[in-house]
Amino acid sequence: MKKYVTFLVIFFNLLSLSITAQTIEQWSRFEASFSYEHSGNPFTEVALSGTFIHKDTTLTVKGFYDGNHTYKLRFMPILPGDWYFKTSSNIKALRGKSGSFKCTVATTITDGPVEVADTFHFKYKNGGYYFPFGTTLYAWSHMTDSLRKITLKNLKKAGFNKVRMCVLPKRYGTAGILPEHYPFKLKNTHTDKAGKTVYNWDFSHFNPVFFQQLEERILELDALGIQADLILFHPYDEGIWGFDQMPAAVDKQYLEYTLARIASFKNVWWSLANEWAYLDTKSIQDWDALIKTTKENDPYNHLISIHGPTAVYYDYTMPELTHVSIQDEAPVLNSVGTATLRRVYKKPIVLDEVGYEGNLPSRWGQLSGEALTHRIWNGVIAGGYVTHGEVIDSGDPDNIVWANGGELKGESWKAVKFLKELITDDLGPLHMADISRDIETATNGKGDYLIYFGEQERGEWAFSLPKKNGELDKLKEGIEYEATIIDASNGTQTLVSERFVTASAGRYRMKDVADKKITLPKKPYLAIRLRPIK
Amino acid sequence: MKKYVTFLVIFFNLLSLSITAQTIEQWSRFEASFSYEHSGNPFTEVALSGTFIHKDTTLTVKGFYDGNHTYKLRFMPILPGDWYFKTSSNIKALRGKSGSFKCTVATTITDGPVEVADTFHFKYKNGGYYFPFGTTLYAWSHMTDSLRKITLKNLKKAGFNKVRMCVLPKRYGTAGILPEHYPFKLKNTHTDKAGKTVYNWDFSHFNPVFFQQLEERILELDALGIQADLILFHPYDEGIWGFDQMPAAVDKQYLEYTLARIASFKNVWWSLANEWAYLDTKSIQDWDALIKTTKENDPYNHLISIHGPTAVYYDYTMPELTHVSIQDEAPVLNSVGTATLRRVYKKPIVLDEVGYEGNLPSRWGQLSGEALTHRIWNGVIAGGYVTHGEVIDSGDPDNIVWANGGELKGESWKAVKFLKELITDDLGPLHMADISRDIETATNGKGDYLIYFGEQERGEWAFSLPKKNGELDKLKEGIEYEATIIDASNGTQTLVSERFVTASAGRYRMKDVADKKITLPKKPYLAIRLRPIK
Repeated sequence: MKKYVTFLVIFFNLLSLSITAQTIEQWSRFEASFSYEHSGNPFTEVALSGTFIHKDTTLTVKGFYDGNHTYKLRFMPILPGDWYFKTSSNIKALRGKSGSFKCTVATTITDGPVEVADTFHFKYKNGGYYFPFGTTLYAWSHMTDSLRKITLKNLKKAGFNKVRMCVLPKRYGTAGILPEHYPFKLKNTHTDKAGKTVYNWDFSHFNPVFFQQLEERILELDALGIQADLILFHPYDEGIWGFDQMPAAVDKQYLEYTLARIASFKNVWWSLANEWAYLDTKSIQDWDALIKTTKENDPYNHLISIHGPTAVYYDYTMPELTHVSIQDEAPVLNSVGTATLRRVYKKPIVLDEVGYEGNLPSRWGQLSGEALTHRIWNGVIAGGYVTHGEVIDSGDPDNIVWANGGELKGESWKAVKFLKELITDDLGPLHMADISRDIETATNGKGDYLIYFGEQERGEWAFSLPKKNGELDKLKEGIEYEATIIDASNGTQTLVSERFVTASAGRYRMKDVADKKITLPKKPYLAIRLRPIK
Repeated sequence: MKKYVTFLVIFFNLLSLSITAQTIEQWSRFEASFSYEHSGNPFTEVALSGTFIHKDTTLTVKGFYDGNHTYKLRFMPILPGDWYFKTSSNIKALRGKSGSFKCTVATTITDGPVEVADTFHFKYKNGGYYFPFGTTLYAWSHMTDSLRKITLKNLKKAGFNKVRMCVLPKRYGTAGILPEHYPFKLKNTHTDKAGKTVYNWDFSHFNPVFFQQLEERILELDALGIQADLILFHPYDEGIWGFDQMPAAVDKQYLEYTLARIASFKNVWWSLANEWAYLDTKSIQDWDALIKTTKENDPYNHLISIHGPTAVYYDYTMPELTHVSIQDEAPVLNSVGTATLRRVYKKPIVLDEVGYEGNLPSRWGQLSGEALTHRIWNGVIAGGYVTHGEVIDSGDPDNIVWANGGELKGESWKAVKFLKELITDDLGPLHMADISRDIETATNGKGDYLIYFGEQERGEWAFSLPKKNGELDKLKEGIEYEATIIDASNGTQTLVSERFVTASAGRYRMKDVADKKITLPKKPYLAIRLRPIK
C-alpha cells in the first residue's frame, strides 16, 4: 500500500509540472470536458469513465455526452486533499486523459450531501443535522423564467430546505403549460384522428439542453440551502409524451445518463417515483431493478427512496432504500402512526403527501392551514418528517404552487417555518419519551420536551412528564423547568411565568413538587415546550 | 405418473392382505410405534423418518424416541384417500417398516390447521374462516391437574379460540409454582453458596413424559376448538433452569424433537419466542436460524411468528413468518396503528399483549375491562386481531390467569366473547372502508358496516358512510339499512327503529335521503352496526 501511495505522489508531482491544479471545496463539483467528433450516436456508442484517485480512496464515475461534440466527466470530491484522475473509453481519443485538482475542507458543518444519522434522522456529511422541512413543486423547473424566479423568492421567504420535484415533464389535471425542453430528441409530431398531438421521440438521443436546465435549477436550490428530492419517474404524463411507459432499456439508460450528469451535485436525493403503483406498465420487479440501477450509478450514495399512492407502501426494508417516503394521511392524524412506522422500518420516516393546504375539489387538496400544520406536528413529535404542500386555486388553475411553484398564498408555510426553526435551532431531533404509552410527549434526550395536545382544547395542563426518556437515561427528581406555551398553527410562543421542579409521583410519571398547573387558552393545536434550567 | 399410481395401487392391495387398514379423518393424527432396544443414546443416535405416500403427494416426517424402547412416527394426513408409509433409519431394526391407512374427508369447514387467507385473515384448511380471539395463559400447562381443569372450564365459558402458552416452564414474578416435569433429563441438583438450587441437565436426553403432558394439553384445547399458539422460547427463566440460554445446538435439537412430536397436531401455531429481545444470549441471526429450523421441521406449514417486547418489532417481512405478532399498546389506541401495520406487512396483524385487564403494580397490568375491550375493538375494526389477557390479583399472586390459568375474574372476556360472535357468526373479516381517511368505519365488503366511536361520547350520529369500500365496489345510492347500536364494553345491541337509505352527499360520502340521525346515549365505547336490507 505504501508503495502505491509513493507512486501516486510521484505521479502528482509529475502532473503538477504540466497542469495548473484547480482548487475546489469538498462536496463541490469538479468537471473535465473533452472534445471529440463521433460519426455515430454519441449517447449510445461512446463510453467514457473516469477513475478518481486520492491517497485514501478511489472512485470511478461515468462520463456523458453534453452535445456539441463535448464529453464531460463530473466528480464530487468526498475527501479533502489531492485528487488525480484518468479516463477510460472505448474511443481512443477519450482514453487515458488525466488531470488533477486540490480539494479543500468544507467550511461549514451544514454542508455536503445529506445522509442518514442516528437511525431515524439526517445529517450533512460535514456533521450538522439536517431536518427536512420541504414542500412539493412537481413541475416548477419546467415553468417560465419569470415564474421560477417567483418560486425561488418564495422558497427563500418560507425557509423550506427540500423540494420534491419531477425530472420528467408533468401533465396533470389543469397544469397545462408545456415545457420548453424535453429529455429526448423529438423526431417529429403528428396529429391523430382525435386531434391529439402525438410525439415521436428518438429515445436513443438525449436532449442535453433539458438536463442543463435541470442542473441550473438544482444549483439555484443549492444556493438557498435546499435539497432537491428528484422524482425520477411519475405517472402524470396522461398519455401525452409517453415518458411514463418507456421500454425498460430506455428507463435504465435514462437513469444512467441522469446520474452521470447529476450524481455529483451535493444537494440531490433520488425518489424513484411519485405514486409508483400508478405507473402500471412497471412491476415491483421493475422498480427493484430501477432502484438497484440508481444505487449502482451513484458513487456518492445519495439518499434513495420511492413514493407510492395513498396507503400503498413499497417494501422499505430493501437495503438500497435509505429512508421511507410514504403517502398516507392516517399515520399523521396523531403521533401513533409515525411512531409505529419507525419501529417497523428502523429508518428515517418521511411522510410526503399527507394532504395539502388548499381549496381543490379533491379532498387531498382541501386541508386548512391549521389542519396541515397539525399533521406535520404529529409526524415531527413522533420523530418523523412531514412534507408541506399548497394547492390554493385563486382563479388560475394552471398556477398552483404544488405543481407549478409561484407565490405561496396559504398559512401553513409560516407555521412550518416556525417549527423548522424550533427543531433546527433549538430542540434538535425528537422522539417519543414514553414509547408505546404517552402519545403526546416528545423528548430530545437532552432534557428538553415538546408536548403537543393536537386537537384537544385544554384549559390547563398539570405538569407531568414520563420517567422514561426514550432509550436514554430516565428523568430525575429535582430538575427545574421553564415552560413555553406554543400555538402551533400561528407559531407564537408565550413564556410561562412560573417554573416547575420534577418530583416523583409514582412508578411512571414525574409531577411538579407543588403539583403546579399551566393554564391554557382552550384552543386546539397547542404545545408546551419545557427547557431545563441548568 | 400413471405407472407410479398403478404401482401404488398394487402395493396398497398387497398391504391390505396383511394389515387391517386404519381409518382416520383428514387432519387427525396417524401414529405408528416401533420397539427397539438401543444400547446408546436413543435421542441422538437413532434417526427415524417415515415417507408417507398418497397418489397425489408425498411427505417425509421425522420420528422420535418416546421412552420405554419405543420409537414413534406421527403424521397428519393433508389429503383424503389411501396413504402408505415406509420408514428409513440408521438402525436396521427400524428400517423399511411400512403400513397404510385410509383417510376420510373432514366433516366440518371449521376444522384442520389454520392458515393465512385473503392476505390479512385466517382460515381453516377446510375452508371456514378462523378469527383469532385468544387469551394468554403462559404456564397453564405446567399447573396442577385441578387448576388445569378450572382453566379449561373457563376457556370453554369464555369461548376463546386461541391460547398463547409456553412450552418451556416459566418462572416470572410471583408465579412460583414448580412444574412436575421438565423437558430434559435431570442429572442432579445442588445448592449453591447463596442457597439457590442449581439444576444440572443432561441436554442430550429429553424427558418424554414432559412432552406427553404437553400433548395432552394440546388435545384438551383442540377438543374445545382452541388453537395452541406454542411459545417455543421465552425469557422468564430468571436463572432458575437455564432453558433461556441453552447452547445453539441444544436449541435446534429441542425444536427438532418438539416438532417431530407435535407438528402433526392440527391446532398448533409456532411462536418462536415471547419477548425475544430479552433472551440476550441470542442474536437476530440466531433467531433467523431458529425460525428456519422450525419451518424446515414442519411439513404441514403451521403458522409461524415471533413476539417481541413492547414496541420492539422483528423483521416480519421474513418469508418464513406467516403473520405479525406484536407487543405494542399505541397501535390499538385507535384504528390507525393496526391499519398502518397492514399496509406495511401485507400479512395478518395479530397484536399479542396490548396491556392486560388487571390490578398489578405494573402499568401493563392495570387496564380496566373497558379499556382492554376498547383496544381489542380498535384492532379488529382495522382488520387485525388482538389478544385478551387478565392479570387480576385477588389475593393470591401465585394465581393470576395470564400466567397460571384458573378462574376468569374480569369483565373484558365477556365483551370479547360478544365481539367474537359478532365477527364469526355475522360480519366476517373487516377492513377500513375509506383507507387512510375515515378511521371509524369498518366494512366487510358485503354491504355491512361497523362504525366504532371509541372514547368519543356522542349524543348522536348523522347517518354517513364513505363511498369508498376498501378495495371493493363503491357504495351505491338507494341502499336501505337497518342500524343497531352496540355497547362494546358490555356487549349489548339495541335495534334502531328507523331505517336509512343512502343518498349521495358530495364526492366522498353517502348520507341518508332524509338526513336522518341516530340518537346515542352519550357514553364511550359505542358502535353502530349497519345491515343492508336485501
